[in-house]
Amino acid sequence: MKKYDKLVKNAVGRMVPTIVNGEEQVPFMGVGKYIPKGRKHAPPVASCANFADGNKEVANLKEALIKAGLKDGMTISTHHHFRNGDIVANQVFDIAKELGVKDLRWLPSASFPCHEHLIQYLEDGTIHHIEGSMNGPLGKFVSEGKMRGLGVLRSHGGRYQAIQDGEVKVDIAVIAAPTADSFGNANGVYGDTACGLLGFALADSQYADKVIVVTDNLIPFPAYPWQIHGNYVDFVVKVDQVGIPEKIVSGTTKITKSPDRLLIAEMTARFCDEAGLIYDGFSFQAGAGGTALSIGNYFGDILKERGWKARFARGGSNKYLVQLLEEGYIDYILDGQTFDLEGIRSIRENPTHVTTSPFTSYNYHGKGNFASLVDIVVLGATEVDVNFNANVVTHSDGYLLHGIGGWQNTLFGKTSILPIPLFRDRMPVIRDEVTTLVGPGELIDVVVTERGIAINPKRTDLIEKMKNSKLPIKTIEELKAEAEAICGKPEPVELDDEIVAVIKWVDGTIIDAVRKVKS
Amino acid sequence: MKKYDKLVKNAVGRMVPTIVNGEEQVPFMGVGKYIPKGRKHAPPVASCANFADGNKEVANLKEALIKAGLKDGMTISTHHHFRNGDIVANQVFDIAKELGVKDLRWLPSASFPCHEHLIQYLEDGTIHHIEGSMNGPLGKFVSEGKMRGLGVLRSHGGRYQAIQDGEVKVDIAVIAAPTADSFGNANGVYGDTACGLLGFALADSQYADKVIVVTDNLIPFPAYPWQIHGNYVDFVVKVDQVGIPEKIVSGTTKITKSPDRLLIAEMTARFCDEAGLIYDGFSFQAGAGGTALSIGNYFGDILKERGWKARFARGGSNKYLVQLLEEGYIDYILDGQTFDLEGIRSIRENPTHVTTSPFTSYNYHGKGNFASLVDIVVLGATEVDVNFNANVVTHSDGYLLHGIGGWQNTLFGKTSILPIPLFRDRMPVIRDEVTTLVGPGELIDVVVTERGIAINPKRTDLIEKMKNSKLPIKTIEELKAEAEAICGKPEPVELDDEIVAVIKWVDGTIIDAVRKVKS
Repeated sequence: MKKYDKLVKNAVGRMVPTIVNGEEQVPFMGVGKYIPKGRKHAPPVASCANFADGNKEVANLKEALIKAGLKDGMTISTHHHFRNGDIVANQVFDIAKELGVKDLRWLPSASFPCHEHLIQYLEDGTIHHIEGSMNGPLGKFVSEGKMRGLGVLRSHGGRYQAIQDGEVKVDIAVIAAPTADSFGNANGVYGDTACGLLGFALADSQYADKVIVVTDNLIPFPAYPWQIHGNYVDFVVKVDQVGIPEKIVSGTTKITKSPDRLLIAEMTARFCDEAGLIYDGFSFQAGAGGTALSIGNYFGDILKERGWKARFARGGSNKYLVQLLEEGYIDYILDGQTFDLEGIRSIRENPTHVTTSPFTSYNYHGKGNFASLVDIVVLGATEVDVNFNANVVTHSDGYLLHGIGGWQNTLFGKTSILPIPLFRDRMPVIRDEVTTLVGPGELIDVVVTERGIAINPKRTDLIEKMKNSKLPIKTIEELKAEAEAICGKPEPVELDDEIVAVIKWVDGTIIDAVRKVKS
Repeated sequence: MKKYDKLVKNAVGRMVPTIVNGEEQVPFMGVGKYIPKGRKHAPPVASCANFADGNKEVANLKEALIKAGLKDGMTISTHHHFRNGDIVANQVFDIAKELGVKDLRWLPSASFPCHEHLIQYLEDGTIHHIEGSMNGPLGKFVSEGKMRGLGVLRSHGGRYQAIQDGEVKVDIAVIAAPTADSFGNANGVYGDTACGLLGFALADSQYADKVIVVTDNLIPFPAYPWQIHGNYVDFVVKVDQVGIPEKIVSGTTKITKSPDRLLIAEMTARFCDEAGLIYDGFSFQAGAGGTALSIGNYFGDILKERGWKARFARGGSNKYLVQLLEEGYIDYILDGQTFDLEGIRSIRENPTHVTTSPFTSYNYHGKGNFASLVDIVVLGATEVDVNFNANVVTHSDGYLLHGIGGWQNTLFGKTSILPIPLFRDRMPVIRDEVTTLVGPGELIDVVVTERGIAINPKRTDLIEKMKNSKLPIKTIEELKAEAEAICGKPEPVELDDEIVAVIKWVDGTIIDAVRKVKS
């Protein structure tokens, strides 16, 4: 099987394959242009006759995988709520290796440096290829063209969409859970490895043929909240440890101390305020990076000063958001993942700290999703081009080092803002063309740098609102020129012709391809 | 189209049709014997491109129904959380009549006397037939052979199963909601018509082609808890009133004052205690009838006396269960519907008062369900026969006057007990044969009457445990003889040969048929 075939130019001018790992693909057609015509994936109908007493415990993970019918060529999914503290995914493939199973497709919701362990199985044929983010060592491995199959990167919402639509059929989902009962109900709220939520495994539980829950904290029914419904679960395995707590969540998230980043954060908040984007009842989503946290704090200051409330803030939650919630400045945190211990405490204690999932928040093939309801979305990027197209997966040297996460999905918020430094390590961030096009410029509204703010010309409303602002509103070309005046014009990176991975858009079409780095 | 065709004798000896309303059916094969081989119903894939700003409000229910494509022969579903206070279902068919739409199939999760209004539409061809419980006037209408199509009765779990399996394809689900937002998130917790839960509409929301939420309390996003996910909803309609509060929940549920019923309740509790069914960490389900409430109270007394806790109690919740929860004698209420205002308050305030659904609790075509995890289940019945088969849908005169509710589903609990009077209006309740066989005797463990307790001979463990009990343990034949000695042997009811409705078992097979009453 060829890794890919039949390249065409898609709607954003990128050459992308229309056959990937033997399966036909649709090239990106433009935002909102591809309308699916099929039906959702239909898993087999089960029967309680086969689950008579509701106790699904089996002795160990190996037995569960054997009972689930593990065999060559299957797709095995795992989630990344344990981040770099995951133990279970590696064990799954250790067992597959031991059983001599070959050519598996691994569908993690994201991979982390701890999964470097799996490179040996990519090399020896146990794993054929990975569909999911390739962070760190796995990204390097893929970038260097060493994976037999083509990598497929999807956003969190795109992963839900792909599983729901049957684009990826999951044979066995392995769901590591901080707490579960023998019926298979599971949650991330309690236990030594509490991670807050298990939403990244939701689609897997709903649509996989066989579902295995692995836990180190088996409690009497009911394990509530049942973030994963036992009604979808085939087997439950009790193990000594599913994850390494200190690598799952940080003890505390920290606001940036860099003066440049603080300046960017302050400018972003001022921009939002002057543009009228902040109002009594507004909503926002900021990540857990140092700059984003700082912007959230500035938003909080504005709310406090005016006696306003945000109707909701979208998580990744952290102690700063939790504090705003507890002080009454936010009605709801709608959380997709928790980043620190305060987030987990809050989700456990506070009914207005609400768990969401890629289904509610990000699935583009639903009847709407929450992402489009958010007023202000604050995001990062490795590169932006003069047409506001942005990159989050590769560095300017071409290496595939990051996942998409919810990034593409959140672009559908009412105003999306990229607060980014004008350059990193003397490499300008604003380019003529991004190395990898992950988000189309028509969805990116504002770029805020320490030396100026560029508004997408499509947002004439924002340009009008800001025309008398004292903030340094510039064109994106001006910002680019400033960076190049300081750092020099960057040399274009030379990449191989060979494609090593594709980037899916939120609707399952291919928006770009990632090329092999030259050795 | 013939209403039904091709009768065969099923595994419990009942003659049932294998074609109903033109669709092929499987006759009941025995408990756990029919193993489905198909796949779940696959609804069309939607796209956010068609729900861009997430606001799904349309002007009125008529517009929503037209936009949803209402046309002849469609299946329209509604839920019964508003019980006899429902306003919306009648309006749906008023609109259908106005639009001249014909031959609809109405799939309520239950019907109530307030739906007598719809008899005119059964007569004039707007509605072809009803699949759902036929309480009161509709039951009489059907029993007299006046409905053009055949009635199909399903349990709560059977309804979920039928929709999930595609046995019934819902074209348009109309979900009346006490609270909703314009995205379509909806709950029964808040608002003037608060009914506690909306779980009976869950399958409809997940599997219907088009979903309409109708509310009289439209609040800003997010309407949380989202018992109905807006991600499944196409249209939202704001109306003045969706239900009549005082007919939705009672101000307060009341324990029986009848000395006979109290005696039965006390005997039931004593039986459970002596048989060792009550222990620290046990679980139970009792309904909201006067006798059942009283049994729950006796259980509570035992817990208090011994300093034990129930791990969970299954609702229908009521003030007595809520009190036990609040006093710490129950860890969780796992609630399917709330019966009084205290239940609603509790579900709103108490995170350990948990909402469940027919999916979690009753769907037999899942990987297990909660019903099988309950230690003691207390249920009613209109008739029981000497083989412990029981009836809940017809009276001994043959009239179809009750729905199945969760009755069939809960029979899978570890011990199911029917506390029933030995006779009603001088009609013995224990018969040679039940008029309609709704629950197979192999799943019914104990019958408790005011004059004695009969244990199913299959439960040798219980017979052994009770052999030295001072409780009046008798055979079911002895109980029957006692009733007949008092009331005389009942005349067998003469029914017409014509079938007017079928009773589905939890797996979608047909367990019995209901015959027309002779006029």
